[in-house]
Amino acid sequence: MTSSQKNRMKSRDHNAHSVSLCAGHSGLTGGTGFIGSHCVVELIQANHSVTVISNLANSVTDSNGYPVSLKRVELITGKNIKFRKVDLLNLLDLEKVFEDEKFDIVMHFASLKGVGVSCKEPLKFYYSNVVGSLNLISVIINIKGRPHSSKPANTLCKKYCVKKFIFSSSPAVYGKPIKFPIKEEYATGVGITNPYGKSKYMIEKILNDITLIDKEWKIISLRYFNPIGAHPSGIIGENPTEIPDQLMPFIIQVLKRKLPYLTVFGNDFETPDRTCIRDYIHVVDAARGHLSALNRIANGKCGGFEMYNLGMGKGHSVMEIVKAMEYATGKNIPIKIMPRRLGDVPCLCCDPTLAAKNLNWKTTFTLDEMCRDVFNWLKKNPNGFDDEKKQELKQG
Amino acid sequence: MTSSQKNRMKSRDHNAHSVSLCAGHSGLTGGTGFIGSHCVVELIQANHSVTVISNLANSVTDSNGYPVSLKRVELITGKNIKFRKVDLLNLLDLEKVFEDEKFDIVMHFASLKGVGVSCKEPLKFYYSNVVGSLNLISVIINIKGRPHSSKPANTLCKKYCVKKFIFSSSPAVYGKPIKFPIKEEYATGVGITNPYGKSKYMIEKILNDITLIDKEWKIISLRYFNPIGAHPSGIIGENPTEIPDQLMPFIIQVLKRKLPYLTVFGNDFETPDRTCIRDYIHVVDAARGHLSALNRIANGKCGGFEMYNLGMGKGHSVMEIVKAMEYATGKNIPIKIMPRRLGDVPCLCCDPTLAAKNLNWKTTFTLDEMCRDVFNWLKKNPNGFDDEKKQELKQG
Repeated sequence: MTSSQKNRMKSRDHNAHSVSLCAGHSGLTGGTGFIGSHCVVELIQANHSVTVISNLANSVTDSNGYPVSLKRVELITGKNIKFRKVDLLNLLDLEKVFEDEKFDIVMHFASLKGVGVSCKEPLKFYYSNVVGSLNLISVIINIKGRPHSSKPANTLCKKYCVKKFIFSSSPAVYGKPIKFPIKEEYATGVGITNPYGKSKYMIEKILNDITLIDKEWKIISLRYFNPIGAHPSGIIGENPTEIPDQLMPFIIQVLKRKLPYLTVFGNDFETPDRTCIRDYIHVVDAARGHLSALNRIANGKCGGFEMYNLGMGKGHSVMEIVKAMEYATGKNIPIKIMPRRLGDVPCLCCDPTLAAKNLNWKTTFTLDEMCRDVFNWLKKNPNGFDDEKKQELKQG
Repeated sequence: MTSSQKNRMKSRDHNAHSVSLCAGHSGLTGGTGFIGSHCVVELIQANHSVTVISNLANSVTDSNGYPVSLKRVELITGKNIKFRKVDLLNLLDLEKVFEDEKFDIVMHFASLKGVGVSCKEPLKFYYSNVVGSLNLISVIINIKGRPHSSKPANTLCKKYCVKKFIFSSSPAVYGKPIKFPIKEEYATGVGITNPYGKSKYMIEKILNDITLIDKEWKIISLRYFNPIGAHPSGIIGENPTEIPDQLMPFIIQVLKRKLPYLTVFGNDFETPDRTCIRDYIHVVDAARGHLSALNRIANGKCGGFEMYNLGMGKGHSVMEIVKAMEYATGKNIPIKIMPRRLGDVPCLCCDPTLAAKNLNWKTTFTLDEMCRDVFNWLKKNPNGFDDEKKQELKQG
C-alpha cells in the first residue's frame, strides 16, 4: 500500500472512530465475500476479535483451502484472521463452531445472491438463504438438533452466543415501492418478483417475529443499496463472475475486453438522461454501516428488530456511472441500447435519514472515488483473486 | 357403523364420484391428523393407493406405535393403510421413503397449526412448516443431500416422485383482506399477524416460484376455511387438545365440563347478532376438496400453481354455532362475553366460485350436520383417540 493510500484510508474512517466501540468476538458468516471481507477489515481496525464462517462455495482459496480474500485482509490489517469452514445447512458442524467460539454477536452476510440467477434456481436460494438463517438462529438459542427432530431440545445448557445479530438484507424487500425515496417504514413484501428478494423478505419476517417473543434478541437488518468500489488499498475487491448480473461488474468485463460492449437496458425512462437511476454506495461505507449497527447493539440502544437503509440518498444514472468509469480509467466504454427489462423502475433511491440519526452513519465516498477504487483494484488484480491461486499452483 | 350412517355417507359422496378419478399412489404427509385422516378415507373409497407419512408428533398411537386414527380409518374403509414414520426435517429418512414408495402425487397436510401457539414459538413453526416443505420438494425433485451441502447433487438418477403436489394452505395467507367475500385473486402476505399464517404464505410463494421455472410441476394450494365436524360414522374426528385455540374445540371442552363456559370475544361487531362471523366447512367436504384437486391434476387440467378457497361462501356467527351445538346436543352451553381480541375482523368468508368452477367442488354438509357429526364423534369417543390407547395399555 502506498503512503497516499494510507492517508486516504485514514481520512476516511471517521465514521468508524466517531463512535465508542465495545470490543467483543464477532462471528461473520460469508466473511470471505465482497462485503463480508471489507467488514472484516473495518472490525479488525476497530479492535474487534473476528471469526469468519464460510462454506467457501464461491470463494477462491489457496492450496491449503484458506480463502485468498482473508489472506489479503491479513495483509491490510497485519492480523491473523480466524477462519472456520462450515456450511450453514450443516447444523451439527455449525453447532460445533458456536460451541467453540462463543460469539458476542453474529453478522450474517452468507447468502446466495443475484436476482436473475435466483429466478432460475428458486429452491436453491430458499434453501441456502432461509434455511441457512433459521439454522443460525436455532444454534444461537441453542436448540440441540432441530425442533421436532429426533434429537431432544436442550435449552438448559450454556448458551453458545448472545442474542445479537446483524443481517445483510436488501432493498429488494421493498418489492415495487409506490413512493421514492424509499423509507424504512414503507411496506415490504409486496410485488417482489424474484426468489432472492423474497428470501431476504422471509428472513426479515422471521427475525422480527423472534424479537417479538424474546426481548433479549437485538437484531438489525441492513438494507444496503448498490455496493460498488473496492478497498482503497486495492488489495481486496469484488471477485469477478463470468456472467455479470449488475452494472459495475458488467462494465468491468467490458473494460477487460471480455465483453464487446455494455448493454444499457432502456434509454426512454423519465430521468434527466433517460437511463435508470440507482443509489450506489462504496463497499467500505457499507462495511462501516455494519460496524455502526454493531455499536448501536453493543451500546444497548437497539430496540429489538430494527431495519435501516444504507444508501447515499441520491442516485446516479447508468450513463453517469459509465462516464465516471471512463473518467477514472481513461478508457472508452462502448454501449449498446436495448429495450427496458421487465420490472425496471426509473429511479430507485433511498432515504438514509434513519441510519444517519440512529446509527450515526452516512456515506463518505463520492461516485468518482468508488470508480477510482474499482479501477485501482482492477489494475492490481486483473483476474480478481484467481491470479493468486494460479501463481500458487504454479509455485507449488 | 349403523346402516343409516352408511346411507348418509353414500348420499353425501356425490362430489367424489361425480368426477372420473385416476388411480395412483398418493403420499400423505400429516395423514394421521384431523383433515389428513379424513382425506385418507376419501382417497381409499375412491380406489386410490395411499401411504401415510407422519412424525407422530401429535398423534395417539397404539402399543406398536401405529397411529390410532389410521386403525380407525381401516375400520371405516376395510383396507390396510400403509404407514411410514418419518419427520420431514429428517431429510435422509424422508428420501428413503420416497425411494421405496414412488408416489404419483404428494398431499402435504403436515404442519404445526394454531395462530396463538405460533406467536409463542415462531422459530419452531418456521422450521417445521417452511423447512419441512422445502425438504419435501427437494426430495421429490431428487436433490441428493441438500443444495450446497457436502453431498453432491444428483439429478440424473431416477426420480422418486412425479411433480404433483397438493398443499394444505390456509385463509391466514390473506392477512387482513380489504374486501369480502375473499377471492383467490386478492393480495396475500399483507398484514398477517402470526407466524402460522406467514409460514403458509412463505410456502405458497416458494411453491409458486418452483412452478415458474419447471413446467412439469403441477401444484394446487387449498385454502380451506374453518373445518369442523367429524366423519359421519363417528369413528374418526378431531382429537382434543388441552387448550383449544378455536371455537368448536372450545365448545367441546365446555360440553365435556372441562371448562366452565365458552369465552366469546366481543359482542359489539357490525354483524346481525354482534358476534364474529366465520366460514365453516365440514371436514369431509374439506377432504373431498383434496380429491377434487387431485383429479384436476391427474386429468392434466392444472396450469402450474393454482390456489383455491374451500368454504361454504356464507358464514355463521359465534352465537349461531353455539345455538346449533345446543340444538345438536340438547345441552346448554354457558358463555361469557369478553372484549374483542386484537385483529379479529367482524366477518371472514370466502367466495368459493373458483373451486366450484375448476374443481367441481362445493360444500354438501349444513351447519346442523356439522354439529351433529361433532356430537356423534364426541358421544362415541369422549376422549378422542386417547381412550383406545388407555384401553390397550390396560389389556396389554
